Amino acid sequence: MEFDIKSYIARNRAEIDEALDSLVRGPDSPPTRLMEAVRYSLLAGGKRLRPILMLAACEAVGGDRRRAIPVACALEMIHTYSLIHDDLPSMDDDPLRRGLPTSHVVFGEATAILAGDALLTDAFRLVAAGGRAAGIDSAVICDIIEDMSAAAGSRGMIEGQALDLALEGRRGASLSEIESMHSLKTGALMRTAVTTGARIGGASDGEISALASYAVALGLAFQIRDDLLDLDAASDTGKAKGNDARRGKSTYPGLAGVDESRRRMTGLIHEAVARLSGFDERAEPLRQIAIYLGGEG
Amino acid sequence: MEFDIKSYIARNRAEIDEALDSLVRGPDSPPTRLMEAVRYSLLAGGKRLRPILMLAACEAVGGDRRRAIPVACALEMIHTYSLIHDDLPSMDDDPLRRGLPTSHVVFGEATAILAGDALLTDAFRLVAAGGRAAGIDSAVICDIIEDMSAAAGSRGMIEGQALDLALEGRRGASLSEIESMHSLKTGALMRTAVTTGARIGGASDGEISALASYAVALGLAFQIRDDLLDLDAASDTGKAKGNDARRGKSTYPGLAGVDESRRRMTGLIHEAVARLSGFDERAEPLRQIAIYLGGEG
Repeated sequence: MEFDIKSYIARNRAEIDEALDSLVRGPDSPPTRLMEAVRYSLLAGGKRLRPILMLAACEAVGGDRRRAIPVACALEMIHTYSLIHDDLPSMDDDPLRRGLPTSHVVFGEATAILAGDALLTDAFRLVAAGGRAAGIDSAVICDIIEDMSAAAGSRGMIEGQALDLALEGRRGASLSEIESMHSLKTGALMRTAVTTGARIGGASDGEISALASYAVALGLAFQIRDDLLDLDAASDTGKAKGNDARRGKSTYPGLAGVDESRRRMTGLIHEAVARLSGFDERAEPLRQIAIYLGGEG
Repeated sequence: MEFDIKSYIARNRAEIDEALDSLVRGPDSPPTRLMEAVRYSLLAGGKRLRPILMLAACEAVGGDRRRAIPVACALEMIHTYSLIHDDLPSMDDDPLRRGLPTSHVVFGEATAILAGDALLTDAFRLVAAGGRAAGIDSAVICDIIEDMSAAAGSRGMIEGQALDLALEGRRGASLSEIESMHSLKTGALMRTAVTTGARIGGASDGEISALASYAVALGLAFQIRDDLLDLDAASDTGKAKGNDARRGKSTYPGLAGVDESRRRMTGLIHEAVARLSGFDERAEPLRQIAIYLGGEG
């Protein structure tokens, strides 16, 4: 029987959605405006790509994917916080996200900032508490916290966002500057999704390193695809079309052209899949995710 | 020889300042604008009360205070992030902090938000990486991360800031609402300073619980003192005088009067010291810190 990637993604996404829902809707979740803002953004129907990659990486090394679910939810919380803060008026000033008004439009700027702060802080709590409840060894949890915080911190995602703001509107950004920015802003979190899943699954250092290379290539391919979608009138990202160009953002297709961007994206997808050559059929979900993301673009 | 609290505080503060400095000025610290903003706020000469409490709590249970230094720095990073975000235009809109222009005035709002995000994220990295390098057991590090993130998160400090914004300008806030808000906004981080120091020192559950009660009383006393200082023309907080009243903030002295506020503060200091009755002379710094803070007001 063929491996059905669409149903794999749908199944895992539903499982993550359910876990996230029970985290922030439980009977002991306080009925505050802050938590309302947290729920609004966290349960707004994301693709859950990072948690799905984490579960798939855990499976790829023969681990029990269920043990990765709390930590996968924590990573989605970190991703969601970054979206709330990136959308703020002083940052990208985006009024829409996935077709819905952004957090600061609905709740005001102060609550949006605090909701992001809460998601980030509570995510680390979930890794420590939920990870232990799921039976992950304390030393592995410390490795995971180091890995995730490095990916999200001042030398990872946050520096990527700072570079993105610095490049905005600046003429003459090079392709390599754009790639560096994306590898921090988007790639770092995708890398930690995969390496964290591998750690939970008990991976060797060699496996973690191969999976990190897979994720770096995939992350960049994913970002080029996102830039292409932004140009595409058929885009259903829920954002105004051609946002990037309108805002003077340098994008991969803007600098290299659409055809070259597609070629680069396809090359990166092949590279990602090639990095999995040492893994057996349990890495099939990771392979198919890469191919699926490439094809969608 | 009498225990000299002023020199104890000065010595510990200098040690924390030096450790913070080397964390963000090291040769491998990137020369980015983001890190410039991080350094600006982190090295702006805070009192380092929370890290000093952490070291003193570690000593109080017979632990080696040097092992607590990285985690103490991480807590100061969390405190600093909270100040940067609280000062933002959409929050308290403060142009000055400790007599210096606030982060968003110097670096712009976007960089200030990102600098706060970076301090928060990097703090958890420091607990995991620096804590292990200092020889703290992985299981204890997980306990610490749970404790600190709970204190700082959506049911701790962040909810306190949300309540503070909600109470601002509202007429008829009660003393108990003000106390609840402060116990979250300021008290939670002071509590985790003390309990975390105790955990690093190998405290029993009973010791952790007694020290938590000490910190809760101290935290509230400290906040009343801060409100009193805000009223006091001789204040040297570096803020405009009477900020709170001007902004329509409900304060303890505003509701209960100055005399009753001083009485309540003194009662809380006595309570804090009484919670330490089961500890020997190694808890003398904690006792003296409470008395010193009370006297300063």
